[in-house]
Amino acid sequence: MSSRQSDRREFLKRGAALAGGLGLAAAKPASAQLPDPEGMIVGTDDLVAYGKRSRFEDSKRIPHGGRHSPDAFGLDFHIAAPLQESVGVITPSSLHYVGTTRGSYVPDIDPAKHRLMIHGLVDRELVFTMEELRRFPSVTRLHFIECAGNRSRSSHTTVQETHGMTSCAEWTGVLLSTLLEEAGVQDGGEWIVAEGVEEVKGASTIPVNKAMDDCILCYGMNGEAVRPQQGYPLRLLVPGFEGIFNVKWLRRIKVVDQYYMTYNDYGHLTQDPATAALGYQIGPKSVITFPSGSQRLPEPGFYEISGLAWSGGGKVARVEISTDGGRSWQDADIRGEPQPMAHTRFSMNWTWDGNECELQSRCTDELGQVQPSRAQVAAFWNQPPDQPVRVKGQDNSIQPWRIDSDGNVHNAII
Amino acid sequence: MSSRQSDRREFLKRGAALAGGLGLAAAKPASAQLPDPEGMIVGTDDLVAYGKRSRFEDSKRIPHGGRHSPDAFGLDFHIAAPLQESVGVITPSSLHYVGTTRGSYVPDIDPAKHRLMIHGLVDRELVFTMEELRRFPSVTRLHFIECAGNRSRSSHTTVQETHGMTSCAEWTGVLLSTLLEEAGVQDGGEWIVAEGVEEVKGASTIPVNKAMDDCILCYGMNGEAVRPQQGYPLRLLVPGFEGIFNVKWLRRIKVVDQYYMTYNDYGHLTQDPATAALGYQIGPKSVITFPSGSQRLPEPGFYEISGLAWSGGGKVARVEISTDGGRSWQDADIRGEPQPMAHTRFSMNWTWDGNECELQSRCTDELGQVQPSRAQVAAFWNQPPDQPVRVKGQDNSIQPWRIDSDGNVHNAII
Repeated sequence: MSSRQSDRREFLKRGAALAGGLGLAAAKPASAQLPDPEGMIVGTDDLVAYGKRSRFEDSKRIPHGGRHSPDAFGLDFHIAAPLQESVGVITPSSLHYVGTTRGSYVPDIDPAKHRLMIHGLVDRELVFTMEELRRFPSVTRLHFIECAGNRSRSSHTTVQETHGMTSCAEWTGVLLSTLLEEAGVQDGGEWIVAEGVEEVKGASTIPVNKAMDDCILCYGMNGEAVRPQQGYPLRLLVPGFEGIFNVKWLRRIKVVDQYYMTYNDYGHLTQDPATAALGYQIGPKSVITFPSGSQRLPEPGFYEISGLAWSGGGKVARVEISTDGGRSWQDADIRGEPQPMAHTRFSMNWTWDGNECELQSRCTDELGQVQPSRAQVAAFWNQPPDQPVRVKGQDNSIQPWRIDSDGNVHNAII
Repeated sequence: MSSRQSDRREFLKRGAALAGGLGLAAAKPASAQLPDPEGMIVGTDDLVAYGKRSRFEDSKRIPHGGRHSPDAFGLDFHIAAPLQESVGVITPSSLHYVGTTRGSYVPDIDPAKHRLMIHGLVDRELVFTMEELRRFPSVTRLHFIECAGNRSRSSHTTVQETHGMTSCAEWTGVLLSTLLEEAGVQDGGEWIVAEGVEEVKGASTIPVNKAMDDCILCYGMNGEAVRPQQGYPLRLLVPGFEGIFNVKWLRRIKVVDQYYMTYNDYGHLTQDPATAALGYQIGPKSVITFPSGSQRLPEPGFYEISGLAWSGGGKVARVEISTDGGRSWQDADIRGEPQPMAHTRFSMNWTWDGNECELQSRCTDELGQVQPSRAQVAAFWNQPPDQPVRVKGQDNSIQPWRIDSDGNVHNAII
């Protein structure tokens, strides 16, 4: 080893946090020759028309909870996004999480034949073709969707398993309020029932105030048509609400005078209708995606801790990171300008000293809501703190990742 | 026709611009029955892992200028994005425009074998693996790229042909300044030469001040790995500069003391090096994507005019729309918060009266730069205004679309 190499390695091991000197142990002096390309990808007509990812990329979704069968009609079926490989805030449409209660089949809809009906307690019943919907004033907004069942269990090893039932996309479509104003909501119209094209009629009941606020009838997703697994050609986006309200393959909106029970109800009926809307909101929540479960830090030194934060209550206002199991906290950097009800990327520069430690992240949203610890959640549900937490309803508790002295990262919940 | 239908049709024809009453002629009373789905898409393992778009979607890129051959080595080869079908600001990675000077083949690189070297006038020559690059602090930013040759000709019919050589993505990677600070730029290092893995060594020379400002070594694009056609596994992003500077399949950054001539030079050498950087900047520019060439308005009535604006000079500050061939202008709505050197979606509610008219859009950026008219560009180049404009260098002139009384939209440039 040359003295120059040796000097450099010493420098890097220090894990310097000086501006302009990050001390990344991985940097090495240049070798004389760099490898040549392996070959070329031929630009076929198909690849010219619509590109593909590299054959070396295998980031993929997995069935959530391990259940998967193409014949899984009648089963809850969920596909989790690979958050451990995520970068930025956009989830590629091909990797967006999927939740259905109808198995892994999805409707194969010809958009030329698809119609949206608005009916019920309205002055004018209306039916729209997709072409007609596209003529209305549109909005484009970044929003996350999250399944209410997205939660960490001690049997989960990766962040895809613990938190992969949420994704974020740039959605484009018509505000539901625009169409409801066209139809004219009558007195007494306090709820809407949104109904999709499904064998068993997937539907959700939503307060009309939410419908008039920020719900979007989406035909666009990440710059192209909504994907079939996301509700092609039309899905309802209910920003910040549990995933199940974001009805796919949307074909009817009925304005009604009371909460309608649907197949999609998971305990919502037990809630006071006056406060039900608040119960539907997701978060505040966050999770560290690197380093996360089953990943490994190859050596002590510099790392960027990175993760995602979100809240159904609005914009992410603050994310804190603890590297000592929640005893002390530091503010993370927020990437870009947080959008309301959208994933927000956070990060923090960190030098790992090689000792066992526990990483946590904590989100505070613009309403001042703070993501709770597992112990707080356990106390809320009157459960002993040293037992596995059995959360009723949503679980937005802090996710702890333990890093062993060998660099391996583990899910640290009990 | 019932009196209710008749009333509604009268209302809609008026094209009312009242809040809550857009008067969209396309809305119709509800029919009794809505169509059932055509069938189901089977959730195969492949579709669970990585989803696909609907078989009914055929939005596609086209070879720019009509030249395309898989054996087109040695030819300029450009693939234009379908802006006429774009929604929002994100271009799907599969539809992102492609420009190369090497034909439609692209390198097929194994990221495990790829290396980035930083050398030349630096204190420490460095070589990085992709894994090492991912350990550095990262940034995520929305940026457009545009080919300097992106320009409208009278022979072009669609906006894909006139303006399809620009796209916008969420890019993630390491700031080039971070690595240059690691390497230590020596006195006299005034330029960098960025070199990609290509048969004929695609390379560009960039002022070191730009390199230290906001250039990104990107491994992430729209939430996943950069696509092969965009430079997998690593591309240089030079925000706001002509597309050719955004070197793909990046493998070397050499710090040098003077401008280096490369195969990529298209007249840059004729410029004064002291001001060359400004000449490299794109825009300000904008184009209406709906309604645009070859589209058709089915009937008089309400439409949302929509388009994209961008500038290499920073954020889009204002977009104006003319519906009378540039005689009068109205401010368009800007969608969301404009990002620096990023596509910005604009729109304006409009009622077409059925008469022939000409639509134009005009972008002003945060520096106060205003997109010029075709006549201004002609005057700048000392060309008669009634002849086809032959622009030397970039062409960011205003795009006019003529709408005939039958609703057909045409490219109105001469």
